[in-house]
Amino acid sequence: SWCLGGVQYKTWRFLSLMYGRYTQELGVYAKEEAARLRESGQRRSVSRTLDLLEYDKGRCAKCRICTVRCQKFLISRVGEDWIFLILLGLLMALVSWVMDFCIAICLQAQKWMYGGLDSNVFLQYLAWVTYPVVLITFSAGFTQILAPQAVGSGIPEMKTILRGVVLKEYLTFKTFVAKVIGLTCALGSGMPLGKEGPFVHIASLCAALLSKFMSLFGGIYENESRNIEMLAAACAVGVGCCFAAPIGGVLFSIEVTSTFFAVRNYWRGFFAATFSAFIFRVLAVWNRDEETITALFKTSFRLDFPFDLQELPAFAVIGIANGFGGALFVYLNRLIVQFMRKQKAINRFLMKKRLLYPALVTLLISTLTFPPGFGQFMAGKLTQKESLVTLLDNRTWAKQGIAEEFDYIGHSEAWKHPQVNVFVTLVLFIVMKFWMSALATTIPVPCGAFMPVFVIGAAFGRLVGESMAAWFPDGIHTDGTIYPIVPGGYAVVGAAALSGAVTHTVSTAVIVFELTGQISHILPVMIAVILANAVAQSLQPSLYDSIIRIKKLPYLPELGWGHHEKYNIRVEDIMVRDVRYITLNCSYRDLHNVLLTGHLKTLALVESTESMILLGSIERAQLQALLSLQLGRPRRLAYIRERAVEDKKRLSVVSNDSSENSSHRASQEVRFQVRGHSGQRCKKCFQPFKAHYFQSHRKKCLQNVTAEFCMSSKITEWEEKQLDEQVNFNNCKIDPAPFQLVERTSLHKTHTIFSLLGLDHAFVTSIGRLIGVVSLKELRKAIEGSVTVKGAKVRPPLASFRDSGTSSSENEATELHKLWDRHKSMPLPREHTPSESDEKSQ
Amino acid sequence: SWCLGGVQYKTWRFLSLMYGRYTQELGVYAKEEAARLRESGQRRSVSRTLDLLEYDKGRCAKCRICTVRCQKFLISRVGEDWIFLILLGLLMALVSWVMDFCIAICLQAQKWMYGGLDSNVFLQYLAWVTYPVVLITFSAGFTQILAPQAVGSGIPEMKTILRGVVLKEYLTFKTFVAKVIGLTCALGSGMPLGKEGPFVHIASLCAALLSKFMSLFGGIYENESRNIEMLAAACAVGVGCCFAAPIGGVLFSIEVTSTFFAVRNYWRGFFAATFSAFIFRVLAVWNRDEETITALFKTSFRLDFPFDLQELPAFAVIGIANGFGGALFVYLNRLIVQFMRKQKAINRFLMKKRLLYPALVTLLISTLTFPPGFGQFMAGKLTQKESLVTLLDNRTWAKQGIAEEFDYIGHSEAWKHPQVNVFVTLVLFIVMKFWMSALATTIPVPCGAFMPVFVIGAAFGRLVGESMAAWFPDGIHTDGTIYPIVPGGYAVVGAAALSGAVTHTVSTAVIVFELTGQISHILPVMIAVILANAVAQSLQPSLYDSIIRIKKLPYLPELGWGHHEKYNIRVEDIMVRDVRYITLNCSYRDLHNVLLTGHLKTLALVESTESMILLGSIERAQLQALLSLQLGRPRRLAYIRERAVEDKKRLSVVSNDSSENSSHRASQEVRFQVRGHSGQRCKKCFQPFKAHYFQSHRKKCLQNVTAEFCMSSKITEWEEKQLDEQVNFNNCKIDPAPFQLVERTSLHKTHTIFSLLGLDHAFVTSIGRLIGVVSLKELRKAIEGSVTVKGAKVRPPLASFRDSGTSSSENEATELHKLWDRHKSMPLPREHTPSESDEKSQ
Repeated sequence: SWCLGGVQYKTWRFLSLMYGRYTQELGVYAKEEAARLRESGQRRSVSRTLDLLEYDKGRCAKCRICTVRCQKFLISRVGEDWIFLILLGLLMALVSWVMDFCIAICLQAQKWMYGGLDSNVFLQYLAWVTYPVVLITFSAGFTQILAPQAVGSGIPEMKTILRGVVLKEYLTFKTFVAKVIGLTCALGSGMPLGKEGPFVHIASLCAALLSKFMSLFGGIYENESRNIEMLAAACAVGVGCCFAAPIGGVLFSIEVTSTFFAVRNYWRGFFAATFSAFIFRVLAVWNRDEETITALFKTSFRLDFPFDLQELPAFAVIGIANGFGGALFVYLNRLIVQFMRKQKAINRFLMKKRLLYPALVTLLISTLTFPPGFGQFMAGKLTQKESLVTLLDNRTWAKQGIAEEFDYIGHSEAWKHPQVNVFVTLVLFIVMKFWMSALATTIPVPCGAFMPVFVIGAAFGRLVGESMAAWFPDGIHTDGTIYPIVPGGYAVVGAAALSGAVTHTVSTAVIVFELTGQISHILPVMIAVILANAVAQSLQPSLYDSIIRIKKLPYLPELGWGHHEKYNIRVEDIMVRDVRYITLNCSYRDLHNVLLTGHLKTLALVESTESMILLGSIERAQLQALLSLQLGRPRRLAYIRERAVEDKKRLSVVSNDSSENSSHRASQEVRFQVRGHSGQRCKKCFQPFKAHYFQSHRKKCLQNVTAEFCMSSKITEWEEKQLDEQVNFNNCKIDPAPFQLVERTSLHKTHTIFSLLGLDHAFVTSIGRLIGVVSLKELRKAIEGSVTVKGAKVRPPLASFRDSGTSSSENEATELHKLWDRHKSMPLPREHTPSESDEKSQ
Repeated sequence: SWCLGGVQYKTWRFLSLMYGRYTQELGVYAKEEAARLRESGQRRSVSRTLDLLEYDKGRCAKCRICTVRCQKFLISRVGEDWIFLILLGLLMALVSWVMDFCIAICLQAQKWMYGGLDSNVFLQYLAWVTYPVVLITFSAGFTQILAPQAVGSGIPEMKTILRGVVLKEYLTFKTFVAKVIGLTCALGSGMPLGKEGPFVHIASLCAALLSKFMSLFGGIYENESRNIEMLAAACAVGVGCCFAAPIGGVLFSIEVTSTFFAVRNYWRGFFAATFSAFIFRVLAVWNRDEETITALFKTSFRLDFPFDLQELPAFAVIGIANGFGGALFVYLNRLIVQFMRKQKAINRFLMKKRLLYPALVTLLISTLTFPPGFGQFMAGKLTQKESLVTLLDNRTWAKQGIAEEFDYIGHSEAWKHPQVNVFVTLVLFIVMKFWMSALATTIPVPCGAFMPVFVIGAAFGRLVGESMAAWFPDGIHTDGTIYPIVPGGYAVVGAAALSGAVTHTVSTAVIVFELTGQISHILPVMIAVILANAVAQSLQPSLYDSIIRIKKLPYLPELGWGHHEKYNIRVEDIMVRDVRYITLNCSYRDLHNVLLTGHLKTLALVESTESMILLGSIERAQLQALLSLQLGRPRRLAYIRERAVEDKKRLSVVSNDSSENSSHRASQEVRFQVRGHSGQRCKKCFQPFKAHYFQSHRKKCLQNVTAEFCMSSKITEWEEKQLDEQVNFNNCKIDPAPFQLVERTSLHKTHTIFSLLGLDHAFVTSIGRLIGVVSLKELRKAIEGSVTVKGAKVRPPLASFRDSGTSSSENEATELHKLWDRHKSMPLPREHTPSESDEKSQ
């Protein structure tokens, strides 16, 4: 379905590999050249200054020489990667810190309002509820108006962009503003939303904008493949500065966005993410929030004996349970989206009142968490951050199964309820937060799901840990010293496992180490994360893949673990044998017919129908340009002018009196139609055009009804003649080396090649002869046929709901369509309708 | 120079992508099919048993059904990846643990001997020195005899293998045994050698052997690309179980061995490495070495205030200094190897006495570390492990610049000397160990350099830390609590930075966290590692790349950071325009001429000299086979037989008396020569062959001297005729889709494609027309021209020294030559001599 209605799946990566600078428009090239000249000019002038100065022997001159040298050095360094990465890291650290600051203020304001109104419960409730509703509604409205692309986490889109798909609207300044402000409001509301996913997007936006800005100084920033590399580094920076977790950030961004990763980019990611995390934490120190640079959610578990070997089964249980939990979360999230889209009545209503859905969801969630109400049984008072801090606490809350009178300092008392056991509170917290988070992440605001899931996982881990502590009050270790069980360690394991299961990543393990500042639980965490991943991956796609499917972004599914039938399927089993091709000596009529019937973006060029030797491939747009050049207005006008001159000569003997009349008629629209080869009539006409020529030469033209009629039939005749001419490929951009496979290539290898090179299709040849074509569609079908992911089949959502803003794929499609149309000098005779291809690809 | 004398650079990866199963020999295919049938047979029989059992309704039957089901399930799972990975992890953990155990015993034995002889210093010295000399000599001799491929770390070879080069001798059982036993002895000697690098190799060997073993059960293990994936996972396991560092292991192995890696393999690596590390540590718990699973070199720095923000400059200094140190280490290591190779006198002597060099080096090093001698000033008493434990200690050794009477418990007292300051001890330790490690790693035994470098780095960090502690006795923090400086933290930073600089990796940061079990110093460590990398990478290649260059393994250099000229170099600037090609309708003479002149492994097949349309590529061996088929013995014999029959007819009228005589003559060797096209005589003759035909038909043949002479001239004539025939490509394996580039592709993109696909050459085409070819050689030259790595130019080592065993490239070359020769049914008329190509490629 990803080749639907105009999602311009540009195989930039491979084509640009082939074309080099061919595909760059001349304007861009000129700009680049200009930038280079400018830079070299600067250098030259600097060196001239230097030469001049060296004659001067004064003391001051030395300083100035030094300054000029520095300047020279700096200018030459502007193009270097590390300058860019440092700037990116700095910028993102500032953005992250400022955003955190604003969010903290927002949350404090809510607490202050709630606290100030403690005389009246109703007023308190109103304040508690209104505040998030207003913020979320504002966020949703603002995003909707400014840039609907900013909705959601952005990781699915970044994955698609890094895969090589051009989604230009996702990397604009508007989107940046919408995402930053929208995210701040959304998180400030206290809803169970996360900042990680959006931060990946924000960092990418930053990188894209910074690239644009830096390109003012040097030409290197125009390079497309370099920009993609920088985007990959930016994703790492996003996670790194969000959690102050550089290593985890790099790994997480790799796992979430890439299939194949260049170790080159990995350096860049580490460098930028470390710098960013460093600045982010230094800002906290400077602001006197912290005494020194430490972890964000610092824990203080004992180091000498972090856990006993016999506790490992409990950790494994957490891993497996969280694996199921993660799959359930992804399923629930998709279910909610699908339910909203399927119910036509709801759908129609929500489309009209776009901000109603966010408001209603927020109202529901904040009502349930109202502390004097139900919230008292689920620590509703605590913000997400506070909950996490308390959950990772290194003291035990419960002993012997009863909540004892231990020293609930700080926020921990929120978990204590006079009537209710701490276990009940934890269970309620887990259950309520689970569906709340799944629901909240469907709100059309910039938001991620990582942090809510992380907190739920921590709560589940804590629950298991508290149970273990209650079961073994003196710890499990038998000989010698008593080592009581640390439920906080279980919380760490649970958090890593659940977030790993939802995102299908292992690097959440590294993120928890960096977040807590302790690595003592490494083996339990790794075991739980791997088990959770194994379970979740066999049940559901990752949350990001699920969103990719819902949004119908172009993608290539992953090959699952150990499905070795993949090695036995060959390309010949899945390829399309009926390939559309054009021959080197074909006529425009053949070209026309090929364009009428197929709808592939790229067509094969073969030597002749007999030999079928593949010479290259031509983009559809190129062929359309060729065709319109042959049949288009300029040549048509030239022909008409020629005819007119002839007619004039012929009619010069006839009287001049009907000139006014005839010129009026001549100015009428001249329509013509192109007929298909097999007598089939075209459904769409060439666009009518005004015969400007006649209008401007109104006075000079001598035309009468006979001439006009004659002209119309002459034009048809002319067209037929034009169509029979042989195509001249001289000015046509031909990709001379389209990717070729042989029929015995296995599915596994084909998948590898497609992912490596970001291909969209490949021709199948046998000793130079074209015998078939494989596109992403066939490949995807073949993979999904063999890797049967149960429950992962996503129904096509109602197109109408897409307008309401929960999904921005429609906008994007329209935008891409526009871009696509720009390439076409005139609309083509017959275009396949999007709905048709939609149906086909389902 | 890596395309020299027969190093068969097989581009298996890309070619096999293209060929699918074409290139597999029929025998392999048959075996695979048989395995598949066997497996399905098993399944069938199991299900039959199940069907039968389900009729039986007894209680016991249920159990049996269950058992059979389990059996069925297990058999179907044997082929799954995770079974393989678990087995691999288990095996490697056991190997690692047993080896550690043996090494510990060896080291204890030395200590015991040394301690027992404390009455006589001379005896003590003898014991101290003899022990390592014997062990190292044994290790060197054993390795030399059993498998010279086991020498060194093995990481450079693994990098080359994962790049797609077939180095079969490196993955045999012999090598495994040699590596394990050789490494145990080498490390048991107490020399400054490491186990990490060899462990990567051992794990890969394990994986390769396990693959072979598992292929007895299922056909999937025959798949080449799967095996490469498993090797990548094995590298991670190697590091993981060596240091009990699963995350660091995966990352380190990726950085060290790959240019591009699949996120798919990353999962496998994590899974296997975690399991392996887990088992490795559990074994320690079961052996009562540890109370529970903890880090290998557990530290206990304070958590609340690990370091002050103002200490960061000191950390940065460590990073930069270690960057220079790392580069120096690599340079020193290479210098020693080159010095040994260049000095002809030494070279000749050492070649004769192969075990003398290891013995001499060991003698020198152990003499210097003799504790009552110079060793007292450099903590010579301590083993590598003990040194590291003391260096990471969380107490301060020195205050106010003087070694105070603090509680030197355990091994720490080794650093204390009554006359000498602890700073002097540290400096001496660093300087001595530095050159000792660089020297020791050139000994031809299985050994790595990671651990020695790690210890030196830790010592340097400690030195800086102790200085800081002396400088700021009450810590730097100004307000409130006093937080004294922790020199152990500096040691951690130093260790990560120096090992990162030597290996050009960032993941050493993760390794130190996992080794020490504390992540509190994450930011200093990351900053120091990145700075060290930046410095080292700009000065020298990594240690592994340096060894690759010394050993002249085929490689593709990395693109450096931010050298943006790469984007401006095009393929047309570097390609070879004078391409050797064969046309579709060429004669055998053309084929012969092409084979005579060129020496590329693969030749282009074009349609005709006029059109130059590229149809595919043919391997040289294929063409040689074609040529020898046309001119080879069977056809020659057939022709001779034919002639003989004719002669017989002709001579049947002549008397029979001279038959005995003539048949004797006929049994003499018939020699013939093939002449070159331009009258140039071939230097190498076709191998003479006995005319078996005549021998077996001795009685029947009627031949005389005239006939023989006639035959010789007839054969020449026949040859000429055969050479003029048109080549029949029917039975020839043609790669129908060789990799093509266009002339405008940038160097950067070409590099990416070459690394991604493991290419060895690519044709440059312009709309199907062949215009040039780019091979790794051109690419390497272009990259090294633009990325001027100073001091990295390695002189060609003397070939003679290679025999002495310090480098195994000669063996490997010979081996590959053998393989290569196997392809040739008979030696070719004229082969380019290795020395010639050697000179050219230098």
